[in-house]
Amino acid sequence: MKNAFSPAANTWAGIEPVGYRAGRQDEPGQGYLGVTKHVISGDRGDPSSFEVRYFEVEPGGYTRLEKHQHVHSVTIIRGHGYAVVGDELHPLAPFDHIYVGPLTMHQFVNDADEPFGFICVVDADRDRPQPATDDEYAALAAASALRGKLRR
Amino acid sequence: MKNAFSPAANTWAGIEPVGYRAGRQDEPGQGYLGVTKHVISGDRGDPSSFEVRYFEVEPGGYTRLEKHQHVHSVTIIRGHGYAVVGDELHPLAPFDHIYVGPLTMHQFVNDADEPFGFICVVDADRDRPQPATDDEYAALAAASALRGKLRR
Repeated sequence: MKNAFSPAANTWAGIEPVGYRAGRQDEPGQGYLGVTKHVISGDRGDPSSFEVRYFEVEPGGYTRLEKHQHVHSVTIIRGHGYAVVGDELHPLAPFDHIYVGPLTMHQFVNDADEPFGFICVVDADRDRPQPATDDEYAALAAASALRGKLRR
Repeated sequence: MKNAFSPAANTWAGIEPVGYRAGRQDEPGQGYLGVTKHVISGDRGDPSSFEVRYFEVEPGGYTRLEKHQHVHSVTIIRGHGYAVVGDELHPLAPFDHIYVGPLTMHQFVNDADEPFGFICVVDADRDRPQPATDDEYAALAAASALRGKLRR
């Protein structure tokens, strides 16, 4: 089965963009901004143990700072931005790959002027993300590589 | 961990391109042409149930016609070509997604003049591919949608 991508609509035939979980910018640590998600495969009864998702972050946008036991395999396919992974900062360009290991705090930020899009593969059977606590946020915000780079 | 993609070298830092299994064009059904493979994640002891691979097919090249129990989730990230999936032909362009279900014969062909590259996600624990038998090849070659499109 093919899901054709429409550049004009910026979406795939037969795949509804789903709102990334509602951002709560009034609540510290719950924020995100300008993120859309498509579940490309794995959620329609496919006999596979993974899900393939596409996330796109608008200029100035960012994903929630969070961690979980399951890992992320992320491949950039559009635009530029950076990832915070633990206390490291990784600038990202098309086709770069970034691996997020278990229980490692992470966030994807678009600091450029074009949409920033990436494929993110996860286990279908996985734990729920845990947002950063105030202490975790403060510890990361103090990391030298991340000065001024964390979003919340 | 980041694996930076180098456009000049057309490869990722820290990821060796691996030869796609040797093509045997002298033996019917064992052929492929101009295919390279990178295992982007999942083969380095990662605690995940999937592997993410990148395949690139040169102009005029094609992957082996084969089937297996495990499924493929394929997202085009570069160039143009087509997929044979069962007796269907699917033209493919960047960001198109194609799902190959269990025991469905499939082949990816580059009939354009630029490299054709796609991400292919599979279960880490999976069965071995089975090449097309002569009968399977003949049956597909006779399918109206595939006239002149199969490679071997």
